[in-house]
Amino acid sequence: MARTTRRSRCPIATSLDIFGDRWSLLIVRDLMFKGRASFGEFIAAGEDIATNILADRLVRLEDAGIIRRGSHPVDGRKTVYGLTPKGLDLAPVMVELTLWAARHERIDTAAAELNAMKKRRAKYLSDTRKTARRA
Amino acid sequence: MARTTRRSRCPIATSLDIFGDRWSLLIVRDLMFKGRASFGEFIAAGEDIATNILADRLVRLEDAGIIRRGSHPVDGRKTVYGLTPKGLDLAPVMVELTLWAARHERIDTAAAELNAMKKRRAKYLSDTRKTARRA
Repeated sequence: MARTTRRSRCPIATSLDIFGDRWSLLIVRDLMFKGRASFGEFIAAGEDIATNILADRLVRLEDAGIIRRGSHPVDGRKTVYGLTPKGLDLAPVMVELTLWAARHERIDTAAAELNAMKKRRAKYLSDTRKTARRA
Repeated sequence: MARTTRRSRCPIATSLDIFGDRWSLLIVRDLMFKGRASFGEFIAAGEDIATNILADRLVRLEDAGIIRRGSHPVDGRKTVYGLTPKGLDLAPVMVELTLWAARHERIDTAAAELNAMKKRRAKYLSDTRKTARRA
């Protein structure tokens, strides 16, 4: 984890040192909820991330043990990424970010999905772990 | 909210457009958990934020309706900040960031406090709302 400097051992500052920028959490989102797993899929996700920034964030997330690189199961020459157990453990953070935005901003998430997050949180989290791109 | 450009109506991207940088969430942390409320207190928090960055983030957070500026109750010439209801609603995000760091990184949070977050989550959240610096 040499690339990440820790300035404090406050847990929130520590978390933000690791993934405290917009792009890192959008990569985690793509792997966790969107079924995206390759460099090309992240680029095509429509968030206008520059290729050099994406490459940098993928290295940082891998260094931090949140994602892992592997080979595509069918086309072994193709690189795909997946969430490690540490990355999968970010699911509750993502759920709370979603619920906060749903409460305070105009967003596109379906009411049924928001309801599942709120009322059947444990099941929603366990389903997310199953459907996420895993390392 | 003219200063914040929304590139997507994905709830996670929306949240990150608003406070998706390290400094914004550290200001929210200071108001929510540390009893810090003034420009000088944020600067003295030991995270090495530059004064121009802090000033910029305070304006953005105010524009986004997460914090509000007010006068110090005793010394009316002094400006203090507080969390709005929208800002207080970030408490579950902060709790999940803390629990994630506690599980995967070395941090300084006391075991008793982590336990309260995990086992008595609803009470912890309601206590946090009471002790946070409010607008």
